[in-house]
Amino acid sequence: MSVGIIGLGTVGTGVVKILLKKRKELERKLGFPLVIGKIADIDIKRKRAIALPENIFVTDGLGVIDDPSIDIVVELIGGIHPAKEYILKAIKKGKHVITANKALLASEGFDIFEAAQKNNVELGFEAAVAGGIPIIKIIREALIGNKIQAIYGIINGTSNYILTEMTEEGVDFSTALKEAQALGYAEADPTLDVEGIDAAHKLALLASLSFGTLFSLKEIYTEGITKITPLDINFASEFGYKIKLLAIAKQINNDIELRVHPTMLPKEYLISSVNGVFNAVYVEGDAIGPALYYGKGAGEMPTGSAVVSDIVDIARNIKTGAVNRIQGMGIQGKSGIRIKKMEDVQSCYYFRFSVFDKPGVLSKISGILGGHNISIKSVIQKERKKERVVPLVMMTHRAKEKDVVYAMKEINKLPVVSGKPLYIRVEGGEE
Amino acid sequence: MSVGIIGLGTVGTGVVKILLKKRKELERKLGFPLVIGKIADIDIKRKRAIALPENIFVTDGLGVIDDPSIDIVVELIGGIHPAKEYILKAIKKGKHVITANKALLASEGFDIFEAAQKNNVELGFEAAVAGGIPIIKIIREALIGNKIQAIYGIINGTSNYILTEMTEEGVDFSTALKEAQALGYAEADPTLDVEGIDAAHKLALLASLSFGTLFSLKEIYTEGITKITPLDINFASEFGYKIKLLAIAKQINNDIELRVHPTMLPKEYLISSVNGVFNAVYVEGDAIGPALYYGKGAGEMPTGSAVVSDIVDIARNIKTGAVNRIQGMGIQGKSGIRIKKMEDVQSCYYFRFSVFDKPGVLSKISGILGGHNISIKSVIQKERKKERVVPLVMMTHRAKEKDVVYAMKEINKLPVVSGKPLYIRVEGGEE
Repeated sequence: MSVGIIGLGTVGTGVVKILLKKRKELERKLGFPLVIGKIADIDIKRKRAIALPENIFVTDGLGVIDDPSIDIVVELIGGIHPAKEYILKAIKKGKHVITANKALLASEGFDIFEAAQKNNVELGFEAAVAGGIPIIKIIREALIGNKIQAIYGIINGTSNYILTEMTEEGVDFSTALKEAQALGYAEADPTLDVEGIDAAHKLALLASLSFGTLFSLKEIYTEGITKITPLDINFASEFGYKIKLLAIAKQINNDIELRVHPTMLPKEYLISSVNGVFNAVYVEGDAIGPALYYGKGAGEMPTGSAVVSDIVDIARNIKTGAVNRIQGMGIQGKSGIRIKKMEDVQSCYYFRFSVFDKPGVLSKISGILGGHNISIKSVIQKERKKERVVPLVMMTHRAKEKDVVYAMKEINKLPVVSGKPLYIRVEGGEE
Repeated sequence: MSVGIIGLGTVGTGVVKILLKKRKELERKLGFPLVIGKIADIDIKRKRAIALPENIFVTDGLGVIDDPSIDIVVELIGGIHPAKEYILKAIKKGKHVITANKALLASEGFDIFEAAQKNNVELGFEAAVAGGIPIIKIIREALIGNKIQAIYGIINGTSNYILTEMTEEGVDFSTALKEAQALGYAEADPTLDVEGIDAAHKLALLASLSFGTLFSLKEIYTEGITKITPLDINFASEFGYKIKLLAIAKQINNDIELRVHPTMLPKEYLISSVNGVFNAVYVEGDAIGPALYYGKGAGEMPTGSAVVSDIVDIARNIKTGAVNRIQGMGIQGKSGIRIKKMEDVQSCYYFRFSVFDKPGVLSKISGILGGHNISIKSVIQKERKKERVVPLVMMTHRAKEKDVVYAMKEINKLPVVSGKPLYIRVEGGEE
């Protein structure tokens, strides 16, 4: 059984390390050896640390795909092009494909899953979501007797690291981001991570698997963590909450809510204690009830481990003639599921207004909120220094997103309000 | 694909409910229907709530096993006999078997796994450990690229419920136990649960899977929670710890530590927040690093879901001709692994002595501890009421179990000590 790898970066190196180090153990468990047949990387010179014969290295992905001895092609170069072309070409050649490329699957997944189905090859993507957590296998196989009712995921390690640092050290977003970059937890351009886009990619995959309909990125409401301040984290704490970037998929009747945004969660929830670069996925199934899976979200060895688990599964299927014993995405046509518009989503909210501390401010703001059917649960107003801008903070009962958006616009126009109001959605607690 | 069920109790009913309710959905995912062919139960009269044709009910397990149309036999009667005979008979008839019977597998597993291998049938036991957590599939398939270094499990819901009640309500063991019994979380005879035996059964299975050697119950040091008092829980809290009944499997070089006992864990650990009847398994793999899987440990639907996941896996293998694509236990002969004797285990300890509050007591006790190479980290001595018995509490640095046992015996003989000293092992923290 021969494996070809395109892209010998962090994850690729992890895969090679595991396959080499566990060679005997894997052969003992499988009954046959797993061989690394070919590795493609642009820069094959610097990879000499890995003890492999020189002739297995090539500089072009096609060198892997066109090698007739390769059974399984592992795509680890990331990005849309040429990853998509490589994958489609490998599929057309009848090769099984494994990829960690969430961006590609979330945006161009339909073509790829369809091609794999048509050519009767397998497509493994365990490594695409929360590397160290086998969430794809869990949802697809272990929870098959369940209707998935809700998923709440901390599935972007960079954002979770930044929010954890802001919470524990009291630093602001840009300081925490710089720290994350220095530690290699954030890219030089952190947009994909801190704007919630990476989490949305992963949510698209989890929701597609869970609800049997292929969702695309465009359908997911996405908001990042860049506007969160230490002030909000402190107020959240006073109210008994923590702030996490949460990827949420909830089924309510035939509607699905799909959204990624900073979320206030009761401190005592298990998921609220998931800190640093760790990931966690909370799943509610109609049979198992609540469950939580926790582990590292990324990195050479955790994500490498996910790829190896896909390699073993596919190799076993090839060997026993059971290819596609489980459907890639398990999706068969439209299931009548609709995505709820964000404006119709209901939630409890945290509001922070910056107001001039004059008499009557609270009454004006609460009047506008009441006019939009938003009912206030509690209020904190601190630092009463006359005529200065102070934060006015509120927690609401359940309200409609649309009403909140309109109320915020109206409040923003008040002369006593300085700067744009901030709001954070709240999950759990009273509801 | 026809499924036969022996034992229509709590779990059996859950399995039937899922198979009936999800019939169409499962057929869509599998490409073929799953049919309930026969159900055996002693009392088939009271089961009429389930809408199934009368002629599928029989009163004897053999009625299921001998039915030639049945492909998969699900054993859910529990206990050793006649469960073992039923399973072996089904295997010999070439039926695939699924069981939730941890007691049987942990004590007579060798015969059963061997028979399954010899007859080339599958043996599913996902439901035997932590029903709502797919820990068997995770360890066997998802973590196949990992060397498992440690497992720490809260895998007995009854004990965890009792300890949680003692912690949160301050009640003593027997009050909490009665409450658990009233709620159906504990049996009339709670021995298996509160003495750690059920957790040891499950640990034997997890360790066998993880380390590739079949361990039996006798090899596991087992201690229950009956001696824990609210006083210990409060002292633990003062030191920053919680008390949990933990099933521990740790590999250190070629030695395995296998033990079940009350354990003090730092409060801030994720697993310390696992409360009530919930289960959690913390796993450390050399590739994925630390991971935690959390969910319900038992109950009709969670355990039913685990059985259904086994049914689907086996049905897929039968359909694609890939039976035993994964080995039942994955065990091939002895692997040179030894179980460390409990007396050689090292740990930090919590000691509670009941002493007459006289001058010199601390010096006497700490002298004996020092003489046995046990070094004290901190001491709490409260309620100084002369001549009365007061608790004297200590936390130690790392020490050897053997030394602790000898020191306790010696201290127990001191005239100033009243009643047997209590000690609880500590995991994590300073170490």
